[in-house]
Amino acid sequence: MAERILNIGLVGAGRMGRLHAENIARRIPNARLHSVADVNEQAARLCASLHGECECVSTHLEMLDDPRLDAVVICSATDTHSQIIQDAARAGKHIFCEKPVALTLAETDAALRAVRDADVKLQLGFNQRFDATFRRVYDARASGEIGEPHLLHIISRDPAPPPLDYVKTSGGIFLDMTIHDFDMARFLLGAEVEQVYARANVLIQPAIGELGDYDTAMVMLNFTNGALATIENSRQAVYGYDQRVELLGSRGGVSSENHFPNAVTISNANFLRRDLPLNFFLERYITSYFHEMNAFVDAVLDDTPVPVSGDDGRIALVLGLAAKQSVEENRPVRVDEIA
Amino acid sequence: MAERILNIGLVGAGRMGRLHAENIARRIPNARLHSVADVNEQAARLCASLHGECECVSTHLEMLDDPRLDAVVICSATDTHSQIIQDAARAGKHIFCEKPVALTLAETDAALRAVRDADVKLQLGFNQRFDATFRRVYDARASGEIGEPHLLHIISRDPAPPPLDYVKTSGGIFLDMTIHDFDMARFLLGAEVEQVYARANVLIQPAIGELGDYDTAMVMLNFTNGALATIENSRQAVYGYDQRVELLGSRGGVSSENHFPNAVTISNANFLRRDLPLNFFLERYITSYFHEMNAFVDAVLDDTPVPVSGDDGRIALVLGLAAKQSVEENRPVRVDEIA
Amino acid sequence: MAERILNIGLVGAGRMGRLHAENIARRIPNARLHSVADVNEQAARLCASLHGECECVSTHLEMLDDPRLDAVVICSATDTHSQIIQDAARAGKHIFCEKPVALTLAETDAALRAVRDADVKLQLGFNQRFDATFRRVYDARASGEIGEPHLLHIISRDPAPPPLDYVKTSGGIFLDMTIHDFDMARFLLGAEVEQVYARANVLIQPAIGELGDYDTAMVMLNFTNGALATIENSRQAVYGYDQRVELLGSRGGVSSENHFPNAVTISNANFLRRDLPLNFFLERYITSYFHEMNAFVDAVLDDTPVPVSGDDGRIALVLGLAAKQSVEENRPVRVDEIA
Amino acid sequence: MAERILNIGLVGAGRMGRLHAENIARRIPNARLHSVADVNEQAARLCASLHGECECVSTHLEMLDDPRLDAVVICSATDTHSQIIQDAARAGKHIFCEKPVALTLAETDAALRAVRDADVKLQLGFNQRFDATFRRVYDARASGEIGEPHLLHIISRDPAPPPLDYVKTSGGIFLDMTIHDFDMARFLLGAEVEQVYARANVLIQPAIGELGDYDTAMVMLNFTNGALATIENSRQAVYGYDQRVELLGSRGGVSSENHFPNAVTISNANFLRRDLPLNFFLERYITSYFHEMNAFVDAVLDDTPVPVSGDDGRIALVLGLAAKQSVEENRPVRVDEIA
Repeated sequence: MAERILNIGLVGAGRMGRLHAENIARRIPNARLHSVADVNEQAARLCASLHGECECVSTHLEMLDDPRLDAVVICSATDTHSQIIQDAARAGKHIFCEKPVALTLAETDAALRAVRDADVKLQLGFNQRFDATFRRVYDARASGEIGEPHLLHIISRDPAPPPLDYVKTSGGIFLDMTIHDFDMARFLLGAEVEQVYARANVLIQPAIGELGDYDTAMVMLNFTNGALATIENSRQAVYGYDQRVELLGSRGGVSSENHFPNAVTISNANFLRRDLPLNFFLERYITSYFHEMNAFVDAVLDDTPVPVSGDDGRIALVLGLAAKQSVEENRPVRVDEIA
Repeated sequence: MAERILNIGLVGAGRMGRLHAENIARRIPNARLHSVADVNEQAARLCASLHGECECVSTHLEMLDDPRLDAVVICSATDTHSQIIQDAARAGKHIFCEKPVALTLAETDAALRAVRDADVKLQLGFNQRFDATFRRVYDARASGEIGEPHLLHIISRDPAPPPLDYVKTSGGIFLDMTIHDFDMARFLLGAEVEQVYARANVLIQPAIGELGDYDTAMVMLNFTNGALATIENSRQAVYGYDQRVELLGSRGGVSSENHFPNAVTISNANFLRRDLPLNFFLERYITSYFHEMNAFVDAVLDDTPVPVSGDDGRIALVLGLAAKQSVEENRPVRVDEIA
Repeated sequence: MAERILNIGLVGAGRMGRLHAENIARRIPNARLHSVADVNEQAARLCASLHGECECVSTHLEMLDDPRLDAVVICSATDTHSQIIQDAARAGKHIFCEKPVALTLAETDAALRAVRDADVKLQLGFNQRFDATFRRVYDARASGEIGEPHLLHIISRDPAPPPLDYVKTSGGIFLDMTIHDFDMARFLLGAEVEQVYARANVLIQPAIGELGDYDTAMVMLNFTNGALATIENSRQAVYGYDQRVELLGSRGGVSSENHFPNAVTISNANFLRRDLPLNFFLERYITSYFHEMNAFVDAVLDDTPVPVSGDDGRIALVLGLAAKQSVEENRPVRVDEIA
Repeated sequence: MAERILNIGLVGAGRMGRLHAENIARRIPNARLHSVADVNEQAARLCASLHGECECVSTHLEMLDDPRLDAVVICSATDTHSQIIQDAARAGKHIFCEKPVALTLAETDAALRAVRDADVKLQLGFNQRFDATFRRVYDARASGEIGEPHLLHIISRDPAPPPLDYVKTSGGIFLDMTIHDFDMARFLLGAEVEQVYARANVLIQPAIGELGDYDTAMVMLNFTNGALATIENSRQAVYGYDQRVELLGSRGGVSSENHFPNAVTISNANFLRRDLPLNFFLERYITSYFHEMNAFVDAVLDDTPVPVSGDDGRIALVLGLAAKQSVEENRPVRVDEIA
């Protein structure tokens, strides 16, 4: 039984890191939070202190030296992902990494090569695949309940634009925000994208435009199976975090609603009202983070394929780059132009 | 073909009368609005003038003298219903009468006896039976879709109390408002009531209480088939006219929503909102008035039973009287104590 | 008062013609169905016979000769619209015409020129603008309730593909089906389209593809005010007629649902179910046909602008042609390339 | 800081006990699962083993001897509650006890007296008060959002009848099932019940009737503030666990829906469907169990009143006894006849 416990090291003890730490330490019986590293030593120490036997180490390299460690969970800044993946792979550790692997194909490919060479597992943090609502949409298509998929529409809107400092290093709306929707589109349709056409504008915050980015975008995707998809992105839906999908198939349709903090409707002399949907992505997707980590632990312990591979991350990046190029050149861009 | 046209006389050209007149004159091909009578002669003339060949007569007695007339539609004041039914029955005319026949059993029974003696048809205006939504609830029970009925709940609320002058002559909340719900309960459950228990209060408008009436009531009914039902009445739901039912059966449940002026949801920074439901009973039930009249015309022309009989009206009155007595004596009242 | 009655001639007594005839004859007090013409004389005679004083004439030219006639309603085959409009305009009659004016810009422009030269009114049958649900979405934008519009999504799906004979003369999915959505997009956003990008496939019925047409399409539109819109079309949603829109603005969002035959939910041991939405466009939009005709009659009698102009029809045609070209050339097409 | 950790002993390590144990041990930072006792020693040992430093003791008396223990959580069989409460109170331990305290007023009063004499805290497990949905309904009333409460309707239905062995010792439907709804009615209305009228039948499982119990019930309640309430209970809603409330107030209404496993609607050629609501009370109310325990820990540590008192439990029992008597005697029963 002892070898059925996976010892995990956490690299990056920020908001996402702490959330994964809590799931690993408290909710996944066959996983143990073994050690924590963060460039901000205090953050690492705080996180470690919350979880009994967990060690605090200075760097991810020190962490990787520990032969008791089985796997790492990487939640550090995006620009460090590729290097840490490569280091972890060379140390023979399995890897869970927050998306994206990198903002360039070169760095992404370097990381993926190291993973392949070391024959370790790499799972990417496309947590929305593990959400019960999106999973039900997936099942409706994968089970044949709605027949062959024809038309997909994804709505993905944030409650408010991120800080401008974040925008600067985010890689832009397509690599930061739409990247989740690209993965969702492939996941829900069970097919690959052939061509991307995108349009984007700055309608919300001029400062975002001054940084060369957009706050409002629409993307159209052509899939190998003939399906067509559109993605709607906005950096600001004033009513909150809006994440819905709708899929039409040959034998039926499936659509998803947002999640709400309660199931209450109030009627007054002016209108019927509901409280706003769950407003924060961590709240909306809280159980999906648990399920993705659980799936990672199981895949490593059982030596089965991870449910979200490094290639899934690479393809989402390719689609993001294609969308960027499509907007710049105002033309559809074939995926094989990029990849 | 000519004898397939039913010549109808309208007694009472108020709001309800005009609505029935329009359906008869314009929407029911095998019915013709033959004549109109109203104690307010101007109202009768106005109504007649709107519908081409329609005659204006002084009294319902004059109307009944006309051998070309096949049937009457009675929309006059409640206290005239019983006499006009008796007169019409004796004249051999078929009768559609707005509910209730009367506020007393004696007058009701006199009318029903005349109808029986003359062997004419009498249909009562429980229009809600002809509403598509309530009909679907009925079908769910009658078809066996939800199995045997166990628990029924009816919500019936007005947007605002009626004028006090109306309250005075209405017979009270149970005979004026709940009477529709009594009929609906019997219709939906396909069974008869054995016992009534009711509680009522004055929570909205003290003046209603001063008239000896209530503005807020709950009624519990025991049915012959073992089903239990509750009815909720309020003279004032500030968000509008609220008419819903919910039925639990052994194999499923069925519930109905209100009808809305549009199918739109608006989200803003504070909440999600819908416009208020259709607020006025004529608007909410507009098509049901057409369907009930159509059914009456067909029943007369085809000589088939009317879908809502005089007995249905009598039973609803009995239940209303039982509810009144139950509140006064604070005890369950058996239907056979009244009937 | 006599001159306040509009005498209308109906050209084309098919399904749509009969519907308009009924509204004109029975529901619009200040309009009169004066005459009917149809190439199928029997159809014309049947329609006329249903509406008392209405004359049956042989051709639209004969109809236009009658000086008592004020206006014509054109519901004949699409390829006759332009000529009849020109004839009616020259005869000084006001015109209500079903969409589209024509399938080519040349014919459309000829008709519009004749209307302009004769200074008569021309209203086009974009009835969906008069639907209470879409009108509420429009109001939410026009009133500022949701702020500046950013992203619009239109879903428009038929229950089943039309007969192949119809497909042959329809002008293709973009001119036959999307044309309504193009008009709706302009109406809801209150702005004009700059550029169209469309993709389309044959996923439902191969025979449609053999005719050079598509059964599944997505269109992306750039608007002058910076808004982006997508339109989803399918010739077959097995659950029925699906017509929804969703609009995100700077201060809120608005979305519409389909209309249903009843407001009932049924729960059984397997799932919660609702009956399918209203399945037939005539049923779904029944009141909109009344409201558009009413608006036409009022505009003529009051000499005010019609709510849907010939130019609105022309622009929708331009967008349809642009979408066709975009699919063929797989590139975004600027509207000014066509117009 | 050390004294801010509450050491809790768990009495009864069945399903509910294990759920509370997990919340105490893993999710409430300032609580510690100190010891576990169960008449089934293996159950106690298993539960203790899951939570690191937790001791396994033989009896609740042994547990109460431990001076390090601050509080007990009682999840043993109902007929042991009163004695354990008395023992715990005498030992000076604070008490969280699953509902009901006892099935008789005598035992209940003995427990409450001991608690009062020892001046310890006693909180009862009416967890539904801590559910986000019911809390929102409560807030709508308590905040004045819907004005003065007039009419309350509670629907409470189980997915399937409990085992007959359970029914035998449950105290009957009113003490086992409706008791939650009695508490909810008082909680939502913020007032006390004056009179109870109840009707009940055996419509689902005759064997329940043979045990002298009912499987279908309706209760009507009169409140001190004039509000009227009805409760609907069924031991079997085939579509699952059904828990809804609806409250009409002078300035608005509020209603709650069930909770669902996902937010997805599927449309096919026959109907629109949703998956069934969360079917199991532990799943439906999972977060409420956390919140009630958290509230208990806070109340003890901060020496503030517990949110659900022993009196709340006593009153719910009184209402259950009144309902039983009302059914037996087919008459309204005043609460002061029982209490």
